[in-house]
Amino acid sequence: MKIGNLGEFGFIDTIKKKFADIDSGLSTGIGDDCAVININDNEDLLISTDLLIEDVHFLKNDIGPERLGYKSLAVNISDIAAMGGTPLYSFLSIAFNKNTDTEFLEGFMEGYHKLSKLFNTQLMGGDTTESLKHLAINVCITGKCAKGKAILRSGAKPGDTIFVTGTLGDSACGLKLILNNLRDSKDFDYLTSKHYCPMPRVEQARFLADTGAVNSMADISDGIASDLLHILEQSNVAAQVNIDLLPLSKSFKKTVNIYGFDSLQLALSGGEDYELIFTADSSKAERLQQIFNQKFGLGITQIGIIVKGEPRIEWFGSGKKIYYNTKGFNHFK
Amino acid sequence: MKIGNLGEFGFIDTIKKKFADIDSGLSTGIGDDCAVININDNEDLLISTDLLIEDVHFLKNDIGPERLGYKSLAVNISDIAAMGGTPLYSFLSIAFNKNTDTEFLEGFMEGYHKLSKLFNTQLMGGDTTESLKHLAINVCITGKCAKGKAILRSGAKPGDTIFVTGTLGDSACGLKLILNNLRDSKDFDYLTSKHYCPMPRVEQARFLADTGAVNSMADISDGIASDLLHILEQSNVAAQVNIDLLPLSKSFKKTVNIYGFDSLQLALSGGEDYELIFTADSSKAERLQQIFNQKFGLGITQIGIIVKGEPRIEWFGSGKKIYYNTKGFNHFK
Repeated sequence: MKIGNLGEFGFIDTIKKKFADIDSGLSTGIGDDCAVININDNEDLLISTDLLIEDVHFLKNDIGPERLGYKSLAVNISDIAAMGGTPLYSFLSIAFNKNTDTEFLEGFMEGYHKLSKLFNTQLMGGDTTESLKHLAINVCITGKCAKGKAILRSGAKPGDTIFVTGTLGDSACGLKLILNNLRDSKDFDYLTSKHYCPMPRVEQARFLADTGAVNSMADISDGIASDLLHILEQSNVAAQVNIDLLPLSKSFKKTVNIYGFDSLQLALSGGEDYELIFTADSSKAERLQQIFNQKFGLGITQIGIIVKGEPRIEWFGSGKKIYYNTKGFNHFK
Repeated sequence: MKIGNLGEFGFIDTIKKKFADIDSGLSTGIGDDCAVININDNEDLLISTDLLIEDVHFLKNDIGPERLGYKSLAVNISDIAAMGGTPLYSFLSIAFNKNTDTEFLEGFMEGYHKLSKLFNTQLMGGDTTESLKHLAINVCITGKCAKGKAILRSGAKPGDTIFVTGTLGDSACGLKLILNNLRDSKDFDYLTSKHYCPMPRVEQARFLADTGAVNSMADISDGIASDLLHILEQSNVAAQVNIDLLPLSKSFKKTVNIYGFDSLQLALSGGEDYELIFTADSSKAERLQQIFNQKFGLGITQIGIIVKGEPRIEWFGSGKKIYYNTKGFNHFK
């Protein structure tokens, strides 16, 4: 059997079962954006890790060194944000060909440093090594949050309102412009900047966690069709999502119209938005939205509700149930 | 300029300087086997990470899945041992081709699980993703030690006795047998087992740390010519090493004789021994050695002393100063 048939999440399930015979103490591991590690009476430590491979996750010459360095760290900080945490330290492993220009590596570290400085996140270690062909980058990030206050994927409750921050699909739309070499598009710069340089929603997530109204949260890395499903699976609930409510940018709407892109596929399954998807007590939803939208330039949008039932998403549009079968991005499928 | 000219450690130095403007709090980062993270009043958290690339660090079909899984974790646990710590949790990132057999991945996880179970080290997260060509494996490991008691590379003092655990060069000698396809060698199994399945010296290192006699320590991953030099650089001292005292196994001595291998190169710069090199107060050296060798099947051997001076190693043999210029393994050089 090939891994392509088992799939990424099938493989992860077999691993979880295999390691059930080892004690995790008071800490929790696989199944959320970060592991939550018990370290003292006031705080929990958060840890996550992401591996990026050239020509799978990025085209080296297209993204360029600075944006690659920035993005390698950004997607990890986003995992800390997804728990309502504050990033602390990062660890960078990088494998590159020995003919790599030092200028490329300096540019990479420039971008990595820029975001490290912005979030006051020190680089505390790592590994530099040789690769025969493809550049490989692994970042491991640590963060912290108040004891027991990490916002897990498993907390969604029937009746919760489902929110997302910002807009959906811009990053995937930007990538589509890049791959089709549509560089003369008027919205090329805006959409590709969302793809190359996503801004982790750390401040917004901490605010949301502090309200006490948020029951579950994840970052949108694979598209909400996949990321919301993970929340549903961990919480053992279902969701109803109204696609008419999806927050889409003007640039996105204009661009998908001009080029005839599949708007729904990009917004639901394109991935790499690195926005937040979360569920909150519906009684507090309106007030939460009002305060959030006043406080941040970035808005939050209600896109649906959590309901009782087996973990799955029912999609609605123009008042009717619609059929949408594409899941989010899944390696090996 | 190519990275090959700057070298692995030159690159790391430029990174350290670049990130000097970000605060590390009470924690310390780059420059040791692990970062030491301040987490509570009684303990420090240790974190390290290692990236392994197919055809650079291992030959996939030669090592096979189980031993690869075992070794990927072993080299990381060895970094925790190098600080005198206890391993806690691991995080595994793995990138593989979508045509990879699930049997290979199951075998990999079997070996990884075996060592996890042995050290009671839970797998708490990670990332599985696609690679177009080479398998890439990154493990991030956490561990703990008593507050302020991590044994750093920077603690070596003039007058200290330099020790190593076990024997040197077996792993590199085993690799040479593999690469030259000398499978009929009588010592093939013993030497290659040291290469494929090194045993992290966690228990021994904790014992050494607890004695209070050990001033500096590192694990031997690149060969003592390199790993001892790192201790000297961090401690700003020099070393005198007597090559006549190097602990070499019978299998090693027999094999290098039969095949005419360069014994010194293998023992000093072959690397991947994953033994410990440490320095201890010379007044306690004899007693320490006696107790250690009684307690463990594995012995420790005095190979030299720390002296005042610029960080460098003076090598002696047959009572004379000898010239040995090969450094340990260094990617990109």
